Amino acid sequence: MRKERLEAFSDGVLAIIITIMVLEIKVPQGYNLSDLKPVAPVFLSYVLSFIYLGIYWNNHHHMMHTVKHVTGNILWANLHLLFWLSLIPFVTGWMGENQFKPVPVSLYGVILLMAAIAYYVLQTVIIKTHGSDSILARAIGKDLKGKISPILYLIAICSSWINDWIAGSIYILVALIWLVPDRRIEIIFHKEES
Amino acid sequence: MRKERLEAFSDGVLAIIITIMVLEIKVPQGYNLSDLKPVAPVFLSYVLSFIYLGIYWNNHHHMMHTVKHVTGNILWANLHLLFWLSLIPFVTGWMGENQFKPVPVSLYGVILLMAAIAYYVLQTVIIKTHGSDSILARAIGKDLKGKISPILYLIAICSSWINDWIAGSIYILVALIWLVPDRRIEIIFHKEES
Amino acid sequence: MRKERLEAFSDGVLAIIITIMVLEIKVPQGYNLSDLKPVAPVFLSYVLSFIYLGIYWNNHHHMMHTVKHVTGNILWANLHLLFWLSLIPFVTGWMGENQFKPVPVSLYGVILLMAAIAYYVLQTVIIKTHGSDSILARAIGKDLKGKISPILYLIAICSSWINDWIAGSIYILVALIWLVPDRRIEIIFHKEES
Amino acid sequence: MRKERLEAFSDGVLAIIITIMVLEIKVPQGYNLSDLKPVAPVFLSYVLSFIYLGIYWNNHHHMMHTVKHVTGNILWANLHLLFWLSLIPFVTGWMGENQFKPVPVSLYGVILLMAAIAYYVLQTVIIKTHGSDSILARAIGKDLKGKISPILYLIAICSSWINDWIAGSIYILVALIWLVPDRRIEIIFHKEES
Repeated sequence: MRKERLEAFSDGVLAIIITIMVLEIKVPQGYNLSDLKPVAPVFLSYVLSFIYLGIYWNNHHHMMHTVKHVTGNILWANLHLLFWLSLIPFVTGWMGENQFKPVPVSLYGVILLMAAIAYYVLQTVIIKTHGSDSILARAIGKDLKGKISPILYLIAICSSWINDWIAGSIYILVALIWLVPDRRIEIIFHKEES
Repeated sequence: MRKERLEAFSDGVLAIIITIMVLEIKVPQGYNLSDLKPVAPVFLSYVLSFIYLGIYWNNHHHMMHTVKHVTGNILWANLHLLFWLSLIPFVTGWMGENQFKPVPVSLYGVILLMAAIAYYVLQTVIIKTHGSDSILARAIGKDLKGKISPILYLIAICSSWINDWIAGSIYILVALIWLVPDRRIEIIFHKEES
Repeated sequence: MRKERLEAFSDGVLAIIITIMVLEIKVPQGYNLSDLKPVAPVFLSYVLSFIYLGIYWNNHHHMMHTVKHVTGNILWANLHLLFWLSLIPFVTGWMGENQFKPVPVSLYGVILLMAAIAYYVLQTVIIKTHGSDSILARAIGKDLKGKISPILYLIAICSSWINDWIAGSIYILVALIWLVPDRRIEIIFHKEES
Repeated sequence: MRKERLEAFSDGVLAIIITIMVLEIKVPQGYNLSDLKPVAPVFLSYVLSFIYLGIYWNNHHHMMHTVKHVTGNILWANLHLLFWLSLIPFVTGWMGENQFKPVPVSLYGVILLMAAIAYYVLQTVIIKTHGSDSILARAIGKDLKGKISPILYLIAICSSWINDWIAGSIYILVALIWLVPDRRIEIIFHKEES
């Protein structure tokens, strides 16, 4: 039962983060099409963050599926992940309202990097609790995606000072890499059952 | 179990969208009845959007009832629908604060149109996964409502440039058409059981 | 299962309403105790609305307990109740920010009155669906509280034009009347079981 | 079933409180690193409050685990706790935006103190309902943490007038004391089962 409450709480927080982000898209003053122009970059960064949060919800969902017993460490590692994700609306708003200027763009990358690390920590804690022979441990395997993403974020953070477009393109690239749902866990699950 | 989590997450997001919309009704400065006047159009557009979101929650609820296994495609088609619905508070605020001027009114229609398309995509993905003989496929049949609504939205989007009242009337008309809950699914369900 | 989703959705909306209301308490500019002064009336109206929403959640909870099958009418009667409750943060903010001036105070009463009527409608729809011999019908009996409250709200709405304090006192009085949870349903339930 | 709905509602409110707090971190005007400076204290107070709410969620979770039947008193004692916790975003924002000035810092302590008292009341009500031989009663034992925290809060509230840093350090200290999850209940539970 405890696991269900952890899932429900995480779902609640993720649902709220994904939805209050829309409050950062401020209603413009005028009523012409041209008044929507300053809203465009905020909208674009909203789309990007929406996809990222969707990916996190999806993968979190899969990962939690493998959890059998929730310990205090899992609980806090999960809250730690939610903490970094909760900052996404802030950096999304800052990046969008400043038309993708270097500092906001790299801070956006920093938050994504911290969230990726927090996700990795949570994953490690779950594997430690359930043993290296657990479903999650075998499903993740070499965890290529999980290792490449932080490196790509780091490149994005640094590159934002050189060129405006590299960082943004990398964020989109990482999203695309992850958009494919984590089928690895599903596959192992099906093998288990058969 | 996965289906339940998808439902719970969707319910959460819809509950938040429907509720934060009220934050767009800004508390007026003065304390006289006349100070409520500028709030009136915002309130009216809030009522309209509340009904629309209620309809979506209701129909989404019925549709999910027929889902037996959730695939990655269903999951993302569902997030895609939630994305467009999450923009309703923004367009509701913009339309209301500008006393139903042409551009905001037609943008409102664009978001409704995109949500309708996203709903159609989700429906198609579910039917593809469950087969053309599934409950949902038979329940929907010719899906007259689902086909008429986008056409009416398109007319509303275009008409908003000619006359202020046509678009608004069409939005109300579509809401009325849908207000009747999707009894088709219920009927098929009952036939199944008997 | 449908009933559970209706409960979960209502709980979600009520939890959000009760919590976003706190966003109406704007952080004051200064950092002295005196800067909290203008916040005091907003805080007081927050306390009152928090109690009202707590009462609604509690009684809604009890009433839903008696529901056996959810019809389209129950669903929309429930959304109708949530609609009026969703306006409470707005009137709470307006009443508080204007130090309980007549118009905001009476508008607060109007929203409470509409919510009371919506609650009555929902109750009637449930009884109609479940028969006059149902648990809810017998539990409510003469429904004295439900009949007195709207009258008291009406008096409050009118009196706010004569004297500042009568309306506020009536709102507190009605809250006190309801603060006693609806034990009637519990009693009948226990009788049923024994 | 009633207990599950109480848990779900509390989880919902806590998830929303923890998330809307991030809305107090206002997006800065400029786009340079220096523009983040005024955000730093708001961010720090956000981190502190996030940890506190995480602790409350965690301990609330453990305490509710021991509840067998929900009475009206438990329900209202729980709402009373949620009330004080719902004020945390407000005091967090006020404390952060004023760079930890004495009055906001001590008000932050007052809210923490009230929440601690509310938690104690809820605990007492649950024990009274379930008997002094109940799991919770034995698990809590002398309840050292529960008794020390209010005293530390009181010291913090008073000290904020003398020195800026004492209060803040005490808040961090109390958080650290509680960060260890309430294993006492888990231990007793395991003993019960074996």
